[in-house]
Amino acid sequence: MVDVAGLVEQAREGRPRAVARLISLVEGASPQLREVMAALAPLTGGAYVVGLTGSPGVGKSTSTSALVTAYRKAGKRVGVLAVDPSSPFSGGALLGDRVRMSEHASDPGVYIRSMATRGHLGGLAWAAPQAIRVLDAAGCEVILVETVGVGQSEVEIAAQADTSVVLLAPGMGDGIQAAKAGILEIGDVYVVNKADRDGADATARELNHMLGLGESREPGDWRPPIVKTVAARSEGIDEVIEALDKHRAWMEERGVLAARRGRRAAGEIENIALTALRSRIGDLRGDRRLDALAERVADGTLDPYAAADELIAGLTGDGGSGS
Amino acid sequence: MVDVAGLVEQAREGRPRAVARLISLVEGASPQLREVMAALAPLTGGAYVVGLTGSPGVGKSTSTSALVTAYRKAGKRVGVLAVDPSSPFSGGALLGDRVRMSEHASDPGVYIRSMATRGHLGGLAWAAPQAIRVLDAAGCEVILVETVGVGQSEVEIAAQADTSVVLLAPGMGDGIQAAKAGILEIGDVYVVNKADRDGADATARELNHMLGLGESREPGDWRPPIVKTVAARSEGIDEVIEALDKHRAWMEERGVLAARRGRRAAGEIENIALTALRSRIGDLRGDRRLDALAERVADGTLDPYAAADELIAGLTGDGGSGS
Repeated sequence: MVDVAGLVEQAREGRPRAVARLISLVEGASPQLREVMAALAPLTGGAYVVGLTGSPGVGKSTSTSALVTAYRKAGKRVGVLAVDPSSPFSGGALLGDRVRMSEHASDPGVYIRSMATRGHLGGLAWAAPQAIRVLDAAGCEVILVETVGVGQSEVEIAAQADTSVVLLAPGMGDGIQAAKAGILEIGDVYVVNKADRDGADATARELNHMLGLGESREPGDWRPPIVKTVAARSEGIDEVIEALDKHRAWMEERGVLAARRGRRAAGEIENIALTALRSRIGDLRGDRRLDALAERVADGTLDPYAAADELIAGLTGDGGSGS
Repeated sequence: MVDVAGLVEQAREGRPRAVARLISLVEGASPQLREVMAALAPLTGGAYVVGLTGSPGVGKSTSTSALVTAYRKAGKRVGVLAVDPSSPFSGGALLGDRVRMSEHASDPGVYIRSMATRGHLGGLAWAAPQAIRVLDAAGCEVILVETVGVGQSEVEIAAQADTSVVLLAPGMGDGIQAAKAGILEIGDVYVVNKADRDGADATARELNHMLGLGESREPGDWRPPIVKTVAARSEGIDEVIEALDKHRAWMEERGVLAARRGRRAAGEIENIALTALRSRIGDLRGDRRLDALAERVADGTLDPYAAADELIAGLTGDGGSGS
């Protein structure tokens, strides 16, 4: 058995191996998962979680790295979670092949983790929030969650952040892609990266138009800013951080941050509950109760809905003794 | 309220509008869904369900149509369920644009239904068996379930059949595609269609090799036959039906049919139970219990696993009074 309390203590001291170990425990659904979660809970809530999403090629990795550098200059501990739902490889590896990221690999104030475990238990929608929880409890003040694709699950993961940054680049037809992927609804801050290229102004204008930013809003509403950057040269990164700070302040003033975190927690609880119920049902495979019900459905003496009712009624109360 | 008993009666008389109405009730999760299901249950079990799967272009639609013609000649009532999980359009429409199929449109002994409702409630894994149930109860003696793609869900739907037919065509690199999609594991009968084209023998040989059909098997094991057809000219279709008859007889002799139907019913019950639990959880959005739990998770006084336990404990017993 792992010494969970000791591991959490070490993670809070900034030891990367302890953080890695905790994330593995959380990802792997270890028998000690609940013990880990219970130990982490009182230590969470201090991190500011920023989601970064955008099509491949817009420079998400470079932008994330530039943001890490800027936050490190300000003395903050930073966690990075790079999520690639389309990859069949499971998490844990450092993003060693990403040159921009590897410059932070030796910095003890930065913890970088990749995660790519589609279909694992409840999927990334389940695993990503747990990893964020570990980084949060470990004392990361800022957590950057970079999603690699622009599919529905990426958008969902990015939307779980306190602040969602949507990245675009000139001349990639991003506007239409963004609209398709639904990321125009989730951005709190928009970044047009590679702004030294032709078409950056056009992309920003198109974006401005699509977002309807010209339209009047309620006073006090958040108006998503569009920031131009050249992340490879760290240009505009301070402006991005300024926009993030403003958004955070705006959320705190209006109670939006607490509301978002409440919604995120509700989603998390739902996902865990569903995963648990799914696995309880899965455990019934080959179980006599399910077999008996199935036999009656197959021979027409019971309909499958009535059988499902009986199954559900038999499910609860079996989860564990006590609790 | 719909007169369910009357509708079932009419469906059994072969009235296509009654069948259509019942499938819509089943697909649409109408309040009378349970009443419909209970009415159908004792009437089911008579149909022989054949799944047809294969890559686009192998001639699934043409083959299905040729099979329908052959079964109709033998005086059997036939149901066709064409499932396209990749289509965003929801079911209900006749496949009017499929010339081969439309020749059966005016035949009262044939009922054709398309279904394409990914993400609807529990998805097609949930909806397809219910539609099969309606066709079965309506008196279809053979139900052909044609899946349009070769993804995981198509394979799962095809695998729910009593007998799974996997179609290939020469020169499409189908062998590798088939292996990737996992359809080499589900085929009870393999059909190399367009057998008048170059490469048909090579495809059959490659398939034979990939299936390991040359290897010795236990005596009495089912050896999936490979049948060559030219469905557009109805060549080889009688041989396909002969192979299906043999497979059915083999399954009945050995108790395999009952076992398969039991497994299918078990999967159906599981899916319905999961869908019901998911929707009960979904109903809790905005509910005070979930909000209160989420608040405690967000402020760190409760971990999400413990919260999920409380949520699950609160879920059951609320499904409805009496039951």
